[in-house]
Amino acid sequence: MALKARVLYDFNSENPGEISVKENEIVTLYSEQDIEGWLEGSNTKGERGLFPASYVEVVKSDTGTTLNNNSTSGDTYQGSRYSNIPAGGFAEPTSYKIQNQTDNLTKTPATSPGFTAFSPPIPVQQQHVYQASQGSDDDWDDDWDDSSTVADEPGVVGGRYSGDLDSNGPATYRVSTSSVSRGSNAQQAKSSATVSRNLNRFSTFVKSGGEAFVLGEAAGFVKDGDKICVVMGQYGPEWQENPYPFACTIDDPTKQTKFKGMKSYIAYKLTPTHTQTQVNRRYKHFDWLYARLVEKFPVISVPHIPEKQATGRFEEDFISKRRKGLIWWMNHMTSHPVLSKCDVFQHFLTCNSTDEKAWKQGKRKAERDEMVGANFFLTISTPSGPSLDLIEVESKIDGFRAFTKKMDESVVQVNATTNEFARKQITWFKKEYQKVGQAFRVLGQAFELDQQAYSLGLNQAIAFTGEAYDAVGEYFAEQPKQDVDPLMDLLQLYQGHLANYPDIIHVQKGALTKVKESQKHVEEGKMDTPQAEGVKERCNIISFATLAEIQHFHQIRVRDFKAQMQQYLTEQIGFFQKITGKLEEALQKYDNA
Amino acid sequence: MALKARVLYDFNSENPGEISVKENEIVTLYSEQDIEGWLEGSNTKGERGLFPASYVEVVKSDTGTTLNNNSTSGDTYQGSRYSNIPAGGFAEPTSYKIQNQTDNLTKTPATSPGFTAFSPPIPVQQQHVYQASQGSDDDWDDDWDDSSTVADEPGVVGGRYSGDLDSNGPATYRVSTSSVSRGSNAQQAKSSATVSRNLNRFSTFVKSGGEAFVLGEAAGFVKDGDKICVVMGQYGPEWQENPYPFACTIDDPTKQTKFKGMKSYIAYKLTPTHTQTQVNRRYKHFDWLYARLVEKFPVISVPHIPEKQATGRFEEDFISKRRKGLIWWMNHMTSHPVLSKCDVFQHFLTCNSTDEKAWKQGKRKAERDEMVGANFFLTISTPSGPSLDLIEVESKIDGFRAFTKKMDESVVQVNATTNEFARKQITWFKKEYQKVGQAFRVLGQAFELDQQAYSLGLNQAIAFTGEAYDAVGEYFAEQPKQDVDPLMDLLQLYQGHLANYPDIIHVQKGALTKVKESQKHVEEGKMDTPQAEGVKERCNIISFATLAEIQHFHQIRVRDFKAQMQQYLTEQIGFFQKITGKLEEALQKYDNA
Repeated sequence: MALKARVLYDFNSENPGEISVKENEIVTLYSEQDIEGWLEGSNTKGERGLFPASYVEVVKSDTGTTLNNNSTSGDTYQGSRYSNIPAGGFAEPTSYKIQNQTDNLTKTPATSPGFTAFSPPIPVQQQHVYQASQGSDDDWDDDWDDSSTVADEPGVVGGRYSGDLDSNGPATYRVSTSSVSRGSNAQQAKSSATVSRNLNRFSTFVKSGGEAFVLGEAAGFVKDGDKICVVMGQYGPEWQENPYPFACTIDDPTKQTKFKGMKSYIAYKLTPTHTQTQVNRRYKHFDWLYARLVEKFPVISVPHIPEKQATGRFEEDFISKRRKGLIWWMNHMTSHPVLSKCDVFQHFLTCNSTDEKAWKQGKRKAERDEMVGANFFLTISTPSGPSLDLIEVESKIDGFRAFTKKMDESVVQVNATTNEFARKQITWFKKEYQKVGQAFRVLGQAFELDQQAYSLGLNQAIAFTGEAYDAVGEYFAEQPKQDVDPLMDLLQLYQGHLANYPDIIHVQKGALTKVKESQKHVEEGKMDTPQAEGVKERCNIISFATLAEIQHFHQIRVRDFKAQMQQYLTEQIGFFQKITGKLEEALQKYDNA
Repeated sequence: MALKARVLYDFNSENPGEISVKENEIVTLYSEQDIEGWLEGSNTKGERGLFPASYVEVVKSDTGTTLNNNSTSGDTYQGSRYSNIPAGGFAEPTSYKIQNQTDNLTKTPATSPGFTAFSPPIPVQQQHVYQASQGSDDDWDDDWDDSSTVADEPGVVGGRYSGDLDSNGPATYRVSTSSVSRGSNAQQAKSSATVSRNLNRFSTFVKSGGEAFVLGEAAGFVKDGDKICVVMGQYGPEWQENPYPFACTIDDPTKQTKFKGMKSYIAYKLTPTHTQTQVNRRYKHFDWLYARLVEKFPVISVPHIPEKQATGRFEEDFISKRRKGLIWWMNHMTSHPVLSKCDVFQHFLTCNSTDEKAWKQGKRKAERDEMVGANFFLTISTPSGPSLDLIEVESKIDGFRAFTKKMDESVVQVNATTNEFARKQITWFKKEYQKVGQAFRVLGQAFELDQQAYSLGLNQAIAFTGEAYDAVGEYFAEQPKQDVDPLMDLLQLYQGHLANYPDIIHVQKGALTKVKESQKHVEEGKMDTPQAEGVKERCNIISFATLAEIQHFHQIRVRDFKAQMQQYLTEQIGFFQKITGKLEEALQKYDNA
């Protein structure tokens, strides 16, 4: 008997070998065994190829039938939950893969080459291993900072604007950060569901714990301090503001050594405003923290930390760039009402760097935190008042999905364009202005042969003009550091957020689907009403949290982009004023010529 | 017996088929018959190839021997003096042939690809026929305005910055004007010389009448009004200033018709400040005047008139460009103490356009002017006081020759560079800024999907920023018209002057050579001292005139380049201020965002 699967979401093939499938379409599977997140099969049109495993639900022929082989252990799929992750960790979200896609983009910006909503993990070279930082203290002191699998793609390491200088095509600007697929935290769920469980055990909905929570399988003791409040704000649900807002500076990265100089690393000095006490943190600490946060918060977009790098870890440029990335990251962390308050982050910010014991204690506590994934949802407190209208929620979520898709496209375009613009300023623009400068200088030199006293002033003025254009060329080359670089830093951070949202939306969508299913089951008499109400209530909680997170995203987005555009324009204005000033200086030389 | 020739000036081969020859080297000729200004032969190194006929002097084996076949008529070579001009007229000076040479130039600006001092006429496609405008009234009414041989090189007609938009190479900017080889006016000389005559009857020295004058063969009655005074100024000999300086505006070119609309032409309205009476002149009048001036003044650099054009004669762009060229030309004419005063120019400026009879009368008078060429030198009045030290003169002339060579090179480079710069601004720079604008606009459009009231201001500000960068792109594209074009107009005019100087220098050099020869003849008893003194005296007159012309050139050069550089920088400053203003406008939009 042929294996069948029902398609949960529309999927449009984007690459050779893939096939498009439509929601509710029944596809034939050639094997239940997924290949790195992809299943092979044929759609109703008879096309044969790959589609994401997480987009389909295997149609049960028999209740006891085989699930994907990875979840044969049934309820307890801990340990196997990463098994569809290719060795090396989770793949980078495809929206980061600008490198191969900018060409397409430039030609047809309306299409969305950089964005694949609900995209399955696609193996790419650049991956992170998070296993190493999970659970064990034994390797904590190893210098795994930056020594894990790293990007080593040829032609990418050269830094910014490293595109082929002779081609007209847009350059590539490496955009990648540490990234862990969202919702990698599947909760140990007690099997007591009567609402059918998704058969695809690798969908984000399942892995995040969203499904377990909706099915009422989450259980834990929520301390008052762990409570996360969603309140109704002017624009809808939002996270309750952190009553003790703070910021944190990241200063003076310094090279430090241990084991009598055998190991070296860079330590960043963090000073949170609420403690005013400096702590030293290494990149590996950030990396560890990031993994904890991703695990804990299924519907919160944890900002990505700056990318790892294989070589040049101690080079000034790299350190300065990483520090800038960490400052951006810290800014988004402290701006987030939920993330800023959470225990593991506070431990990271406040634990005395020299007190190894205290650090390890906090570290262990965080790693053993039970209120992660499905249980995280237990900590959410929704505003009093009526539940959300789930149809309205669905429409809002769909709107946000369309928004993030479009924003991702435009961010990719701005990124590619400004990168290319920077590259041209550094190469062509500089060259053109300096060629003009050189031509004027040569003219001045020719005029110096004239042996006429009365032309001395003119000759000098022309020579100065030549130098002024040389300087203008230099200004062009130096300018991108002042305006394009900060803009690209921002875009990179937002590309990280945008890569997070498909999974966040997926969790909410999964919950909504469960509500619909349970209603149907009630109609069919397969479920009693209170149970269905429970599903709906829990979906309500997820929806509140999702909308609050979306609201937060919009607010920081408006704040960040406004500030960045202002900074960009201010820098550009200063730049053109500097040119004007130089040329005015040159013009004055002619006054007495 | 092999024909031999003595090399008068160093010539460095620049093209395949040419050979280099050194001053005083004796070369073997294969034929006395030149091919369009080139002779074929071999040098002392045994290399075989072409060298310019005007660079060598055929060594007489016998006094009665054959001269070049074109001058077999002996003393009277009128009528045959243009016979080494290829059909179609004189060639363009090579310094105009930037088109094929900019690549070389850009790579090795120190070499002089665009300049060949004393270069022989090289056949090129673009040539003018001046024969048509000489002597006969019959064809005066024909519409030969612009209908003679014209440039029709593919890829050149497209106007400025018309280089291949996709290549990195420098673009070509068509630089060509009407050009007649200098000194085309050979004087009917009476044969009474005892100082040997140059055997190359086509050297500028001969054709200009310089030789005939030095040999005392010029004769004519000089009216007081025709006298041209050289005075001693602060910096050496200079033309006596025109006591009644004037300027002349060129306004409102209008299309006019005659023969009941059968013929159309463009008439320019000229208003000289000294008469304040407007006259209408056509391009053919300028063309005719130019030919008269070149014929009359052997050691004066007559500014070239703007190039002819085959098609689009009535197009606004062309008319406006030609008018600009004519304004520049007029400026140099009225600035010149000798040219501005001369009869034919005054006739051109003041004769009532509607009085056909008066016009023809003046025209005939000019064409029958006897004080041209050799006789022109008779009209020169030198300052009282000692004669010039001819060794010092030679050194000054050599210095000027080096100067013009270097200036020509640098003008070619500035021309090529600014042309390329203009082209890049119109294409790349515009495109880059507009791509940035487009990216911002797309970002603004994406943000408009956010459905958040509080981001409305930001969205509008970003959209405005996009438009601002579009506008900046347009500014870049429009700017060259304001600054590069006027600069290139000036360079073009000066390229014309620089192309004139080799011949002017040649005349003076020829005179100096005659002085040296005559001294030798005196020593050998072949000439008496008073005769030799006469040669020296006449060389003194030519030297005064040449130095005065050089002085004038330096003065207008300093004046013109100072003004042009000031204008260029002022325009550039205004341009960058305009950009700054636009970006400031964009920045303000964020104030309330």
